This record gives sequence, C-alpha cells and structure tokens, in this order.
Amino acid sequence: MNVQSLKVPNWSKLELDLNCDMGESYGRFQVGQDAALMPFITSVNLACGAHGGDPLTLMKTVDLALEHRVALGAHPSFPDLAGFGRREMMLSSREIYALTLHQVAAVQGVVAARRGLLRHVKAHGALYNHLERNLEAAVSFARAVHDLNPELKLYCLSGGKLAGIATGVGLSVVHEVFADRRYSKTGRLAPRNTEGATLESVNPALEQVVQLLEKGTVNTLEGENIPLKAETLCIHGDGKNALELAKAVRELLNARGFKVRSPQ
Amino acid sequence: MNVQSLKVPNWSKLELDLNCDMGESYGRFQVGQDAALMPFITSVNLACGAHGGDPLTLMKTVDLALEHRVALGAHPSFPDLAGFGRREMMLSSREIYALTLHQVAAVQGVVAARRGLLRHVKAHGALYNHLERNLEAAVSFARAVHDLNPELKLYCLSGGKLAGIATGVGLSVVHEVFADRRYSKTGRLAPRNTEGATLESVNPALEQVVQLLEKGTVNTLEGENIPLKAETLCIHGDGKNALELAKAVRELLNARGFKVRSPQ
Amino acid sequence: MNVQSLKVPNWSKLELDLNCDMGESYGRFQVGQDAALMPFITSVNLACGAHGGDPLTLMKTVDLALEHRVALGAHPSFPDLAGFGRREMMLSSREIYALTLHQVAAVQGVVAARRGLLRHVKAHGALYNHLERNLEAAVSFARAVHDLNPELKLYCLSGGKLAGIATGVGLSVVHEVFADRRYSKTGRLAPRNTEGATLESVNPALEQVVQLLEKGTVNTLEGENIPLKAETLCIHGDGKNALELAKAVRELLNARGFKVRSPQ
Amino acid sequence: MNVQSLKVPNWSKLELDLNCDMGESYGRFQVGQDAALMPFITSVNLACGAHGGDPLTLMKTVDLALEHRVALGAHPSFPDLAGFGRREMMLSSREIYALTLHQVAAVQGVVAARRGLLRHVKAHGALYNHLERNLEAAVSFARAVHDLNPELKLYCLSGGKLAGIATGVGLSVVHEVFADRRYSKTGRLAPRNTEGATLESVNPALEQVVQLLEKGTVNTLEGENIPLKAETLCIHGDGKNALELAKAVRELLNARGFKVRSPQ
Repeated sequence: MNVQSLKVPNWSKLELDLNCDMGESYGRFQVGQDAALMPFITSVNLACGAHGGDPLTLMKTVDLALEHRVALGAHPSFPDLAGFGRREMMLSSREIYALTLHQVAAVQGVVAARRGLLRHVKAHGALYNHLERNLEAAVSFARAVHDLNPELKLYCLSGGKLAGIATGVGLSVVHEVFADRRYSKTGRLAPRNTEGATLESVNPALEQVVQLLEKGTVNTLEGENIPLKAETLCIHGDGKNALELAKAVRELLNARGFKVRSPQ
Repeated sequence: MNVQSLKVPNWSKLELDLNCDMGESYGRFQVGQDAALMPFITSVNLACGAHGGDPLTLMKTVDLALEHRVALGAHPSFPDLAGFGRREMMLSSREIYALTLHQVAAVQGVVAARRGLLRHVKAHGALYNHLERNLEAAVSFARAVHDLNPELKLYCLSGGKLAGIATGVGLSVVHEVFADRRYSKTGRLAPRNTEGATLESVNPALEQVVQLLEKGTVNTLEGENIPLKAETLCIHGDGKNALELAKAVRELLNARGFKVRSPQ
Repeated sequence: MNVQSLKVPNWSKLELDLNCDMGESYGRFQVGQDAALMPFITSVNLACGAHGGDPLTLMKTVDLALEHRVALGAHPSFPDLAGFGRREMMLSSREIYALTLHQVAAVQGVVAARRGLLRHVKAHGALYNHLERNLEAAVSFARAVHDLNPELKLYCLSGGKLAGIATGVGLSVVHEVFADRRYSKTGRLAPRNTEGATLESVNPALEQVVQLLEKGTVNTLEGENIPLKAETLCIHGDGKNALELAKAVRELLNARGFKVRSPQ
Repeated sequence: MNVQSLKVPNWSKLELDLNCDMGESYGRFQVGQDAALMPFITSVNLACGAHGGDPLTLMKTVDLALEHRVALGAHPSFPDLAGFGRREMMLSSREIYALTLHQVAAVQGVVAARRGLLRHVKAHGALYNHLERNLEAAVSFARAVHDLNPELKLYCLSGGKLAGIATGVGLSVVHEVFADRRYSKTGRLAPRNTEGATLESVNPALEQVVQLLEKGTVNTLEGENIPLKAETLCIHGDGKNALELAKAVRELLNARGFKVRSPQ
C-alpha cells in the first residue's frame, strides 16, 4: 500500500441502488420497456413532460412504480420534446430554477395524489451534463429542489460539480456510476468517442461495478485505480440489452451478497 | 311576496370575492395587466402552462400574489397554447383526470416553494364550459382536485353541473357570477350573441352584483328574478376596462358596506 | 337484376392504389414501420409536424418514398402531438384553412427540394372524421388545398361529404375504402363497436376489396349490395399485421390481374 | 486619403432596404405593431411558427404585406416558442438543414397561395448569431435555402461568416446593418454590455446609416473608419420607438435623396 492510497477515502459499501429513467412515452409515442424492467430496479426517475411523459403516462408510471415498491424520483429536463432533452439549450439561471421547480413540483404532487412519496431528483440528458459545466445553473437547479422539498435526495454524477454544490445547498447527494462506461483519471466519464471508452459486454461492466462496491475504486482508462463513490447505478432503459443487463446486475449482486435497495 | 319566492333559498350574503385569471403570459408573449390589477382583487387563478404560464411567469406571478396577500388558485386548461385554451378538445375522462392532476400539482408545489398555500382551483376557458356539458369529464376533474388536496375549493359556474358534482365528490364549492353578462331563466348565462346578453356599461353591471348580494337573486333576460348564489365575481383581466371595472366594483362594494375578501 | 340496381353507377375498375400514413415519428419517438412497408404500397401520406413528423423525419421519409417511386401526399392534422391528432378540436373555419395551407405548403416545399412532386392530400385522424360532419370546415380544407395547388388530388372517404365538396371546389377526388371495416347501407363505415363491424381475418377483408373492384359494390352489414367507388385502399401502418396485410393485398391483386398503382 | 483606404472597397450605394420581423404573434398572444409599421418598411421577415407565427397569423401577415407591396421573406428560428427563439440550442447540422427547409417551405407555399412571391430569408434571434459561430451549421442553413429555391436572397450580418458561405453555396446575399448598434474594428457588432455599444438617440443612429450609405464605412468604437456594406437596415419591431425610428429613417433618407426600396 503506497502513501497515496492511504489518503484515499474508504468508499466501499456493500449495497447499491439500481435506477432507471421511465415514463418517457408521450401519448401514443411509446418508448422504453417500463413494465418489463420495473421488477429489477430499485428506483425510478419519472419524466416530467418536458422531454417525454405526458400527464397520463406519468400517472400510469407512478402507479406501476408504487406496485413494485421502487423509490420514486423526478427527472426534469430542458423543454425539448423533439430533441428528447438531449440537445443543450442556453437558458438563464432563473429559467433553470423555474423549470426545475415546476417540473419536480408536478411530479411530487402526482405521486402524492397516488399515495406515494417522492424521494429523489435526477437531471435528464443534456441538462445532466450542462449542470456539470455551468456552476450557476447547478446552483439554481439545486436550490429549486431544496426550496420545493429539502428531503429530496439528488442523484448526481459521482464526485462531480453538482454533487458538491448540492451538498452545500443542504441536499443529500446520491453518487451515480455507470457500468458500461470507462472513467478517466480525473474521475469523469471518458468521452464516448475515445478508444475503449465503452464496455460492450456484460461481464467487464459487472466487474467494474463489483470493484466500485468492494474497493471503492475504479480502474481508469489510463490504468490507475482511483477512488469513486458508487451509491446508485444507472440502467439505461432504452438500450437493447437493458433487460438482460438489469437481470445480470441483480443476480451478480445477490450472488456476491450485496444488498440491492434504494438509498436509505 | 308570492308563493314561489317563499321556496327561494335565501342566498344573500354581504361579502364577495373578486377573482382574476393571471400569469397567462408565455415567455416573451405578454398578456394581461397583472401588476396593475392585483391590488383590487382578492383571489387569483394562476395559469398552469397549458394555455399560457411558462414556469418563470408562474413563479413571478405567485410572488406578486403573495406580496398582495390575495388567495392563490390554479387555473388548469386544455393543452392548447395556440388557442389559449379556448377551443374545445374531446379528451377521454382519464386524460381530463391526468391533466388536471398534473397542472394543479405543479402550481401547488410552486406556490408552496414560494411559501404560500394553494387555496382553490378554477377551470379555464373551453374546459370551464366543457365540464358543464360533460358529466363524466366533470367527475374526473373534481376527483383529480380532491385526490390531490381535498382542502382545495372549486370555483364553479353558480348553480351549475360541476358545482353539484364537486359537492358530491367532497369538495367545497365557491359559486361564481359575472357582472357583465345577463342570465336566462334557467340560471345559465345567456349566449353572447343573444340581444341584450351583455352589460356594456359599468353601472348596470354593478347593480346586478348588488342585487345578487343583497337579495340573492338575479333579474333574467326574460324579466323574472331567480335565486342565484354569488360568492365570487370574475374580473376579466384582458378586458379593456378591466382595471376601471375592478376599481369601481371595489369602491361600490366598500361604499355599500359589503366585505370584499377571499372565501373563508 | 332489379330496378334499383339499374340505377347503380358502374364503379368497377380493375386498378387500385394502396396508401399508407408514414413519417409519423417525432424525434426519438419512433412509430410505424415505414421502411418495411414502403415496397408494398403505391402512395404515402406524409405527417406534417402537427400529430407527428418533425422536420428531419419528414425529410428522411420523403427521400425513402422517392427511392421507392411511390406517390407522395401530405397528411395534415389537428395540432395535437400528445393526442396524435386523434382528438377532435373545435377550430374555426379560418383556423382550418390556415393550418391546412401551412402544413401542406411545408410538405410540398420539402418534397420539391428533394426533387419530388407532391401529388395528393389526405386529412389525418380526427380531422378526417371532423370534415365529414362539419361542412364549413370541409369547404375551408378543400379551398386551402386548391389555393395552394389545384393539381393536388384529395383522398376522401368514398362517397362522403368531403368528396362532394372537394369536387365542387375544383379538386380531383380519389375515393378511399377500407379492407378491414364493414359498411352500413348508407355507405358509411359501421361504427367500430357494432357487432361484426370489423373484419379480423385477412381473407374476408380481401374478398371485400375484390368485390369493390370487380363489381363496384360492397356487401353491407344489413346484407344488401350497394355501389361504392374504390380507388385507393388504406393500409394502417401501425397495425400488428400491417406488413402481412399489405403483402397479401398486393399478391392477391396481382394474381387476379388487377393493376396496383397510384392514381393517374 | 491614406494608403489603407485605397484598398478599401467602394461600398457606397445610394439606396437601402428597410426590413422588419413581423407575424410573430402566436394565437391570442400578440406582439409587435405590424399594421402600424408596414407603411414605412420595404421588406418583411415572416415568423415561421417556431418562435412565433401560428398559421393564421402568418396568413394574415402575408396578406397585409402584399397589400403594402413590401418584399416578403421567411424568418426561420430555433424551435423554442417559450424562449422566442432567443436561446441557443445545440442542434446537429442535419437538424439545422431540415428545420430551415421545413420552415421556409411552409412560408413560401403560404405566400404563393396568397398570390405573392417569396424573395428572401433571414435567420431569427439566437440562430442568426449561432450561424456566425458555427460554420457547419451555416453551410447547412444556406444549402437548405438554396435547395428549396436558389432565387431566394439571404439577409446576413454585413461582412459576416454566413454571408461568405451563402455566396459560396450560390445564393445572393443582402448585407444587413444596424442603426442603433456600434461596430468594433473587426466589423462585428460590439457586445451590448460594452460601454457605448448602443446608440440610444435617433440622430447619431441615423448619421451612422448615412455614413454607411455615402462612404461605405462605419466609425468603429475604437475610432477608425472601416468599410462595411449596407444594403438592408433592420428595424426592430418590438422596440418602444420602432415606429418613430422607422419614420425618421425614411424621412431622412428621402430628404437626402436616397432610394428606399427592397433589394432588386
């Protein structure tokens, strides 16, 4: 054990949340495989109408999630239905505050009316990335969530800028990791177009998750192990192998004695 | 006093709420004169984003209303920005339920985050009329409001179908009247295109209000007095004389010793 | 042969167009199976952005249709993305005129820029039905098409109100029939919820088409044969068996010596 | 006259077009003062529905412009009604191509149906600026216009990147200047927040225009005169003094013997 590793925080933790974006259909436009995936995840991020998720879809997805006793969260987005919230938009900080407040408020109310309790918030698509690069926007986002309900947890890129800001604002943060993406030595995700940046097969992806849980580290593209918190794992519901991956993750985690559950 | 009038309920009440639709601007598209009218009204119906009212407009209007200590309500609508919610849309009952729940939930959450309390709901435009003609839709609408928050009052066409249904569902109803429209003997508003259906000048309009408050009756187009509850009066914020009318109503009511306040 | 049948127009014609609604996806929201169906149809109705069909989807679908040398048409709709254009909206005649003109103009220009020629127009969903019941709306719709381009053919419910109006306005009409629906003696489609109103299996559906082509008549639910023009047959692209049905129709028509081609 | 000025192109030209963005209302949301301004301008840029301009508004504005015999152009925008097209959106080049084609095609068809002829295109708001900084987007934009109709002129920031690209693609370019903004020595507009970047009063604004026309130069914030083509002048229809400015510009130009007319 070298000197550097002595300073590494001990982030190993033998439990993990599996989260998935759901309720992203829009009227007759159906996306995702919510009903099939629901049994394998432990928390759900509900589209709020801005990138998908009309009112009826939201309500049905809330009911489905409550049946499966998964933790419910809101998944606010840039208002861009045609772009599915994946195109960056340059909004003012006040607009970020207002849209976050409005979208999360709507979902919180619908969840409460269906006799559930909203637990968390996770930004969607281009907004998720935008908040890592625009600190003022990140502050506005975190404050909107806190002003609405300070009990809401914020799912953030593990070790990212938003995570720090949200903590400062007074929110509990849940650090999110990805199974199928490699990290650079800065702790950020290596860009998709980098050689070797994605883990195509299931096994290496699962091994990355196991190392994160057992050792609290990830092996970077550059070859070093660096510390990284893993509290929730994102399952992309629109991937072709989403269902297989979700099942495999749960089985492996069960087999190794990890707890799979939503953040407590 | 004739026999018939003996059966007439005594609906006179020496107080009145003045309500106005506000927050209907959409981004740079400004409508209404919210800041000017706010001092003269006692309750406000906030656009929910479907016919107007983007998130930032909603937030600013909530803040303005809280400053003026008026009662806050949500003003859900058919989802039709281009038509300003004034074009009827044939939606299913489930869609009516879901859009009402979603829109009111959003406003309720935003109001709470700005440290206010949502008090009431009033349907907007074509939806307001649609609910009087479609009982199933009216049931869905009232249930959505009740499921979200049974303390919310529902502002309804005085003596109308929705008022009866809402009472049945368990909501408190506030009966709404209009100063500048004449009524037919059925208690409904005479259609706008009927001869004499509108009261153009301020004085006859005010006299109609005074009779409603003092005697609990309205003089119909056919010439009879019929009983009609008057608990809240709608001030159309987009009328040219909206501001003058609002001032005149308040002055007259004050001068005659009526209380002008939101429903208790 | 009885006297009545002597008056029956001879509408038999040994050729048929097969049309299909396409380009209805919206950004990442994918619907239909355009690429698979395209080889089996002879004309395509292109969504114009109001119920589906963002600009990029439209452009790609135009290119695909040009490759397959099918006839291109525009498919205007009520502006209701969440409802996929299937919810009736009560618009003014001027609004119907303007939205039709705008939507068809956009598609006509895009088709021309991709070096094609727009041939026809067919109303979508709730608008298709609305035009049969609202004559003023039907006139506005037909005039908008004619004012844009009098060479455009209008695909209409066979023998319906719009067909008559469009002819009066100066447009060529193409009479549309359905394989999988039964007709009533008035020549209208029997409502879906009527006993026996739909033809579930492929063979009886095809037999109905053959009788329409060979004899110019259809056997109604009430048991009589009545005359009905069959110039184009609608293949519903979103049906589960759409692809099978399209193939079967083409094979049968080829086998019986009918020509399958777009209206000349 | 120094050596440098010998190399300066002679861009003086004693005529000018006055253009104004119009038809930007959206249903009941009214903006601008189109009817009042129309008599004073010589070309109009018509909103295409993406940042304003519903189909009925477009049609009425086309009719109004045809009555006043001003040159008609299309004014495509990022699809962002809530932001009035003033918020940058990061779209792919193919999306830029498709939205430009779609929006301009719609306006071109509507203009033709109302018996007019579309003459030019000018990008709106954030898209106008985006095209100066993103060459690939600018190429896509110019190609879409050219593919639709190579006769369309493109109104561009005078001397800007898009102007060069559009020329390369084969379009005629009309160089646009601003009366109320100062320029930096690079020929770009000085950012609004720079000291002295805007000309608040009418006279200095008009003097800048006169110098542009008579000498083909502009006096920059740094104090030098640099050459700049002035072929069309933008009148902002939403400014408080828009009407006064438009009148003043026309009067001055007439008084000095300039021709005010659309590009020939």
